[in-house]
Amino acid sequence: MTQIAFIGLGHMGLPMARNLLKAGFAISVFDLVQDSVASLAAEGAKAAGSAADAVRDATVVVSMLPASRHVESLYLGDQGLLAQITPGSLVLECSTIAPDSARKVHAAAAARGIGLLDAPVSGGTAGAAAGTLTFMVGGKAEALEKARPILAAMGKNIFHAGPDGAGQVAKVCNNQLLAVQMIGTAEAMALGVASGLDPAVLAEIMRQSSGGNWTLEKYNPWPGVMENAPASKGYSGGFMAELMAKDLGLAQEAAQATASSTPMGALALQLYRLLLKQGNGKLDFSAVQKLFVE
Amino acid sequence: MTQIAFIGLGHMGLPMARNLLKAGFAISVFDLVQDSVASLAAEGAKAAGSAADAVRDATVVVSMLPASRHVESLYLGDQGLLAQITPGSLVLECSTIAPDSARKVHAAAAARGIGLLDAPVSGGTAGAAAGTLTFMVGGKAEALEKARPILAAMGKNIFHAGPDGAGQVAKVCNNQLLAVQMIGTAEAMALGVASGLDPAVLAEIMRQSSGGNWTLEKYNPWPGVMENAPASKGYSGGFMAELMAKDLGLAQEAAQATASSTPMGALALQLYRLLLKQGNGKLDFSAVQKLFVE
Amino acid sequence: MTQIAFIGLGHMGLPMARNLLKAGFAISVFDLVQDSVASLAAEGAKAAGSAADAVRDATVVVSMLPASRHVESLYLGDQGLLAQITPGSLVLECSTIAPDSARKVHAAAAARGIGLLDAPVSGGTAGAAAGTLTFMVGGKAEALEKARPILAAMGKNIFHAGPDGAGQVAKVCNNQLLAVQMIGTAEAMALGVASGLDPAVLAEIMRQSSGGNWTLEKYNPWPGVMENAPASKGYSGGFMAELMAKDLGLAQEAAQATASSTPMGALALQLYRLLLKQGNGKLDFSAVQKLFVE
Amino acid sequence: MTQIAFIGLGHMGLPMARNLLKAGFAISVFDLVQDSVASLAAEGAKAAGSAADAVRDATVVVSMLPASRHVESLYLGDQGLLAQITPGSLVLECSTIAPDSARKVHAAAAARGIGLLDAPVSGGTAGAAAGTLTFMVGGKAEALEKARPILAAMGKNIFHAGPDGAGQVAKVCNNQLLAVQMIGTAEAMALGVASGLDPAVLAEIMRQSSGGNWTLEKYNPWPGVMENAPASKGYSGGFMAELMAKDLGLAQEAAQATASSTPMGALALQLYRLLLKQGNGKLDFSAVQKLFVE
Repeated sequence: MTQIAFIGLGHMGLPMARNLLKAGFAISVFDLVQDSVASLAAEGAKAAGSAADAVRDATVVVSMLPASRHVESLYLGDQGLLAQITPGSLVLECSTIAPDSARKVHAAAAARGIGLLDAPVSGGTAGAAAGTLTFMVGGKAEALEKARPILAAMGKNIFHAGPDGAGQVAKVCNNQLLAVQMIGTAEAMALGVASGLDPAVLAEIMRQSSGGNWTLEKYNPWPGVMENAPASKGYSGGFMAELMAKDLGLAQEAAQATASSTPMGALALQLYRLLLKQGNGKLDFSAVQKLFVE
Repeated sequence: MTQIAFIGLGHMGLPMARNLLKAGFAISVFDLVQDSVASLAAEGAKAAGSAADAVRDATVVVSMLPASRHVESLYLGDQGLLAQITPGSLVLECSTIAPDSARKVHAAAAARGIGLLDAPVSGGTAGAAAGTLTFMVGGKAEALEKARPILAAMGKNIFHAGPDGAGQVAKVCNNQLLAVQMIGTAEAMALGVASGLDPAVLAEIMRQSSGGNWTLEKYNPWPGVMENAPASKGYSGGFMAELMAKDLGLAQEAAQATASSTPMGALALQLYRLLLKQGNGKLDFSAVQKLFVE
Repeated sequence: MTQIAFIGLGHMGLPMARNLLKAGFAISVFDLVQDSVASLAAEGAKAAGSAADAVRDATVVVSMLPASRHVESLYLGDQGLLAQITPGSLVLECSTIAPDSARKVHAAAAARGIGLLDAPVSGGTAGAAAGTLTFMVGGKAEALEKARPILAAMGKNIFHAGPDGAGQVAKVCNNQLLAVQMIGTAEAMALGVASGLDPAVLAEIMRQSSGGNWTLEKYNPWPGVMENAPASKGYSGGFMAELMAKDLGLAQEAAQATASSTPMGALALQLYRLLLKQGNGKLDFSAVQKLFVE
Repeated sequence: MTQIAFIGLGHMGLPMARNLLKAGFAISVFDLVQDSVASLAAEGAKAAGSAADAVRDATVVVSMLPASRHVESLYLGDQGLLAQITPGSLVLECSTIAPDSARKVHAAAAARGIGLLDAPVSGGTAGAAAGTLTFMVGGKAEALEKARPILAAMGKNIFHAGPDGAGQVAKVCNNQLLAVQMIGTAEAMALGVASGLDPAVLAEIMRQSSGGNWTLEKYNPWPGVMENAPASKGYSGGFMAELMAKDLGLAQEAAQATASSTPMGALALQLYRLLLKQGNGKLDFSAVQKLFVE
């Protein structure tokens, strides 16, 4: 039976690990926050005292950490976790980090005969809880086939984006585009309402026309247009603006690494930073609407 | 039987008028270009020697002109067409013009007891030919009910956007958003490909994820991703970049009139103007992709 | 002796008219605000009951109005002031308006044998009071020579920018550039301070280096760097942000008329509108600094 | 007598080292390019076979390298140059690199008792040759006093920007502002000329008005306005667009590190990348003017 080690039990990691438990996997878990570990132990996971302890008997390692530096610091170096993981194991690195950072960890894993996939997710905490995350996976197709039953316990859509690092690239491209069209939608809503239109009518016209996009389908930023969207609940819940700013920063790192020009993506990052400066970083990212209304 | 006058037989107006003919309406047509008039006359329309001549026996007038100044010049003033149209008639003004310009013509029509709707379209020349245009309509609901059978002969979706001018507002909001997400998509595609991803794979992942939008569904700007998209045919056909620049200019006029801030929309206009400066104004608007590749 | 009519006694017009009085010119004045008229009458001007009354015996007319529509409405049409002004007179139109609007008034004046110059100013209310305004003048060189003694009573620098409308063009180009470098300076100051630099040291280094510009010389946006700058007085005084937004709007009108691409200028306008939405429109335009600090 | 080691003899380093020689300093030089070393040896420098060889007897080390990674790789690590330099020596690190990178090297130097200043320059190859560079210096004031005679042999203005890394911060702030106002100037010139103004007249009006900045004083981007500017020589010479793109990238790194919002700076970077994509990276950075003319 597959023994899984799960490292990183934050807002995303905790419900993901819980779904693995529910699916019947044996898992050992570690996080610096004891409460999270204890909470999962109470549900049947094995509590580990350290990351090294967690991976001891595991053949699969899943990690979900905040940023590139945490991932590099966890896995790399003489004292890094890759030195503790049994060769032949499979690592599913689900954090959203810089593609270049992911490639470094890939290379180090390959050097030790450990399979690794970069597998960042989208779908937010709601998707993590419901087990409906989308995984964008970079790495070898054969490793992905091995990983598929495990990913399927945590998510619904699993895309093979390409070689090492490609999962991260797909994620930052998608999220940059999401930010651009969220802001574009917020601008269009504000312009239309200022010009006398009913927000719900305008939203519906654009949704069915060539302006149609995911935010108009699921996540309208104008309060009251969609009952269940964060905009209608004071911009609470959802995906925090400060996390969108983080992902847009990763996109700019990728643009820098490839000398790509992304005027819209760059502007989106700056506008999110203005929103954060106004103290709105913990609100849902659709709160960018606030910039455009008095 | 409804007698319709159709003024303006350009790339859009000609096929629209033809669809009215096909639907069995009696129409008289006028355009400064004699060939267009003659061509429709050969198909059964009545050729008029002037706009005033065209509207003489009409109870419905449809117009499709290039810009605000043409519309104002046609209808307004002592010599304007509104002075020639029988009170009680209905005017369907389908040009894409500034909301403020549309409101001027609305007011003048109302003063003479003529019903008027601003009813700009989306769907391009292909939609005009196929009779599948979308109409975004501003004006009174009762006028729209009267107009519906005529609009239905030319289009598929008919939205009542709101009061006088609201059709134009909806159109510019939609097209600004469309431009923003077209550029956002082009940037994401270029960034992903520069980072090593396969364009078709990236396009499919974003289409199914939160980056999903109309351009990813129908109109991918990367050559070869969608066989029938303009991008795969040298950016020919479709909706010309210079027309998108025109619509973005109208959006900025509306933003100026309402003191709205639209950073993404404003940047989109400037980027389209850069594209035009490179001599690409006659290409499809998805050719904005060219800015981001070497 | 030259008899001057002065129309428009707002924040700028009042001190300008006062300087003409001080220079010994005979002036008749008109404004819709009676207090302003009375105040100048007490200083020796002739109070006029209407614009037409003001220009009756004048051979020079000076006007200073808020926007294009006021200027067009004052001068044009059968009832417009140009119909009241004696042919052979000289009109100095000092309002900041759209170049196209200025050209309309030029054409109408020429048709009646009236000389006209578009002569917008820079220098703000302080320059108007001190008589140190800069005039950017469009129109015929010979008209400018005639106007020079009058302009010299109100300003210090008089530039002949070119033919009809050129004064307005020079003004909007200059002010767009000013806005761009004010924001650029504010961003650089915020970035430097956030990175640990002393604002005064950074300001001085950039001022003496290739980043040097007028705002670093006279008008640093960081509070406390320059004792007498509006930034050090709660952003009071100076040139209001909402007026800068107006000028940036005129620049975008000029860009639209010439299909010019001005990405920085367009972004500057949108950022000023964000500032206005935050309720800061009455502050000095250097208050754009506030966007970039928490 | 002070013995100086000079590492990095590129377009900037070679003339800088030559000026030290001319000033009478004894220097040993190293670069991977043998020709540069040989050329200076012919003028009196001691040719070193490696960086370690160059610093052997030196009490002052000057380095001028292309980017952060070269500097970190030269100085840091067990095999790094800091391990070879005599404690008590002074290092003048003149490369333009990320502030965070500079701070790493500062810390490592301090740990070994070596004084270090980050001292990036502005003034380009012309300033390097003429010995008129500007140095923006970060580090201890006492180290700067020690360094002053050496810096004075290579430059004219020496600014103490603040503590460790502050030289780099000042440099990136200045260059970001320079790029913003270069583009702002180019936009204003193009808008004015498209609106009918003479470029030289417009340039002179703005130079003397509130739009005044360094580029209008010394470096007008419109061909023919300034005889000696790169714009009048086919945009040859000066400071290459690709180097400006590099500096703008460093500014964005600094903005990321401090969560600063710099919309103008971010847009400037993206516009320079568009210029590079058109194959113009080797032209002077004022060639950004080309984006705005047909």
